[in-house]
Amino acid sequence: MTYDVNEIRKDFPILSRQVNGKPLVYLDNGASAQKPQAVIDAVTRGYAEEYANVHRGLHYLSNLATDKYEAVRGTIARFLNVADEREIVLNSGTTEGINMVAYGWAMNNLKAGDEIILSVMEHHANIVPWHFLRERLGVVLKWVDIDAVGDLDPQKVIDAISDKTRLIAVTHMSNVLGTVVDVKTICHEARARGIPVLVDGSQATVHMPVDVTDIGCDFYPITGHKLYGPSGSGAIYVRKERMAEMQPFMGGGDMIREVTRDEVSYNDPPMMFEAGTPGIVQTIGLGVALDYMMALGMDNIAAHERHLRDYARARLDGLNWLNVQGQSTTKGAIFSFTMEGAAHAHDLSTVLDKKGVAVRAGHHCAQPLMEFLGVPATARASFGLYNTTDEVDVLIDALELCHELFA
Amino acid sequence: MTYDVNEIRKDFPILSRQVNGKPLVYLDNGASAQKPQAVIDAVTRGYAEEYANVHRGLHYLSNLATDKYEAVRGTIARFLNVADEREIVLNSGTTEGINMVAYGWAMNNLKAGDEIILSVMEHHANIVPWHFLRERLGVVLKWVDIDAVGDLDPQKVIDAISDKTRLIAVTHMSNVLGTVVDVKTICHEARARGIPVLVDGSQATVHMPVDVTDIGCDFYPITGHKLYGPSGSGAIYVRKERMAEMQPFMGGGDMIREVTRDEVSYNDPPMMFEAGTPGIVQTIGLGVALDYMMALGMDNIAAHERHLRDYARARLDGLNWLNVQGQSTTKGAIFSFTMEGAAHAHDLSTVLDKKGVAVRAGHHCAQPLMEFLGVPATARASFGLYNTTDEVDVLIDALELCHELFA
Repeated sequence: MTYDVNEIRKDFPILSRQVNGKPLVYLDNGASAQKPQAVIDAVTRGYAEEYANVHRGLHYLSNLATDKYEAVRGTIARFLNVADEREIVLNSGTTEGINMVAYGWAMNNLKAGDEIILSVMEHHANIVPWHFLRERLGVVLKWVDIDAVGDLDPQKVIDAISDKTRLIAVTHMSNVLGTVVDVKTICHEARARGIPVLVDGSQATVHMPVDVTDIGCDFYPITGHKLYGPSGSGAIYVRKERMAEMQPFMGGGDMIREVTRDEVSYNDPPMMFEAGTPGIVQTIGLGVALDYMMALGMDNIAAHERHLRDYARARLDGLNWLNVQGQSTTKGAIFSFTMEGAAHAHDLSTVLDKKGVAVRAGHHCAQPLMEFLGVPATARASFGLYNTTDEVDVLIDALELCHELFA
Repeated sequence: MTYDVNEIRKDFPILSRQVNGKPLVYLDNGASAQKPQAVIDAVTRGYAEEYANVHRGLHYLSNLATDKYEAVRGTIARFLNVADEREIVLNSGTTEGINMVAYGWAMNNLKAGDEIILSVMEHHANIVPWHFLRERLGVVLKWVDIDAVGDLDPQKVIDAISDKTRLIAVTHMSNVLGTVVDVKTICHEARARGIPVLVDGSQATVHMPVDVTDIGCDFYPITGHKLYGPSGSGAIYVRKERMAEMQPFMGGGDMIREVTRDEVSYNDPPMMFEAGTPGIVQTIGLGVALDYMMALGMDNIAAHERHLRDYARARLDGLNWLNVQGQSTTKGAIFSFTMEGAAHAHDLSTVLDKKGVAVRAGHHCAQPLMEFLGVPATARASFGLYNTTDEVDVLIDALELCHELFA
């Protein structure tokens, strides 16, 4: 299949709009991705023609919505190469997924003095829930640094394991540097030692084929709104053995078997971990988004983004007044940078916006990494499946304007 | 203003569809409500023209989405008559809201032997989180029964208070019986004794004007998908003094002030309780739904539904082979029933569906109430702002067919 990015762009209505009188150049995909018309149409149809609550009804619309909603579990399993869709818990995204692991699994299995290993480039969603365990249970957080180019040596993670290690929580791809972590090696070694691994898949699943079975992790959360799907959608893969060690996270409808005044018994997993009326229509939309990506081909998306990465890297390297953070050779198309001299990252973002270029500025919910890098904030250009080398050129031109204004 | 239900129905595209060859008669509003075109359009526009992640961006689309998203906090405050919108926490619905109170407030303030008072007609969302506290902390649940017509005597709730009572959790309107609870009296007496009250507003806000300030409760969760808004949207009112007693619930982006390897500090409320990328577009859609309801007028909606209730009650009372549960004079337009003889509630639902009438059958996530009523399940017809007396007639005709088939 040829990957015709100009044809693909036509699937995303927002990409034809202007911003501040300029064509939109959307390079904020690390924060959230735009949606193809197929997803928007699925959401519209979900509300306008096929809406009802799921699971508990017996009428036509409820059955229809339930069938469409439940089918997404299988779509996600296929997307992640998980054989048994009962290992997929549907939720609102990675934050809820990791909190479910913290409250449902870790609080039920860890005690004071137990250790959790984290990399220094984790997103706050994969840090703060573990800080809760430190604050509330006395769990110890052990941090593993990255190297000078932004790579995480899997051996350093393995070397950090002690006889008190109960969990390794590590990103699959850094949302700031684009670094891809060799999570398979980490999981293989951790599994040999009986230590569960949570791999944060929020970024990696957007940019490359992911095979959770091959990785061999225990928990793998994903976020729908970054996957070209609706906001408030997501899921987490949980290995069956870990599910058996869990207590429920949120309580409410659907996750129970029987409730009396004195007792409660719980539904089987994954339902045990899905409380209340779920995000019905956004989950249906997520299924359409994943089908859209798989139809394009995850290998094709990855190849296109490698091309963008190489082109952007070469052009950014030509700006000798720009500090680009993270030079891993295998990184994804995510570039964080600061400018020597006066300009704060937020100033860069503001000037770029005037040129129609949407980038994010700040700590990117990764303050320990910012501290490690020795910068308070960066501007970040993060690419997606619909971006082009022409857009890289627009970014470079706008950065040159920043240099003129601030240098 | 005249309330022209036939004009209003035109705002809801799904209401013109057929089901099983019959016009849809949607009487499953207790489970979830249909959406007006204005809400669907807001969602479509949110994705097709104005989408970006909120809060952390500085570019045009992010600022636009943030402004629209944050404005909903004020809309909800106005809808509930809350003076300070910082007492509104945005979330995915009542289940998340009550779990936040259980994990964030109760787990931080209650201990073994402390008592929580519940009514027997609570929804599982307002039961299971308290069972968690029983299982995990040794908290005691004290149940207050309803009377023969389904009313809850506020004095019985007050009489259940002991010096160990730490929380009263009670519904504002039963999702099974339609009973409206005099929560103001309960809150007034509880407040005099220093006991917080959670009022589950999932149903009440759909059907009548609600004034949280006048009620005087401490926690008031609502659910967007029942309020004619998108799935996965919602909010909870939390009194400022209670916020000060809370620990965060979910950890992640946006809810922190600073994260280091060793420590974490939290944002001010309400942000402290809003972790990760929120349900951006569905929250914007919820704002439009509440504006739609307020434009119709909550008093007008309530008056229309009283008319429906009275008409439906009179017609259902004419079916002497039908057992209608709950006869409170002030109840909302929610009718649960069983048929004498062979037919299970699920059979009723199936036959009604063949006639295009969508009702729900089951325990309605209220098993303690089912046990109290002495029935395993009921069929439930629950009305909304767009239902008509003609639809009541279709329901009655279909029930008469059930009687023919099953009696």
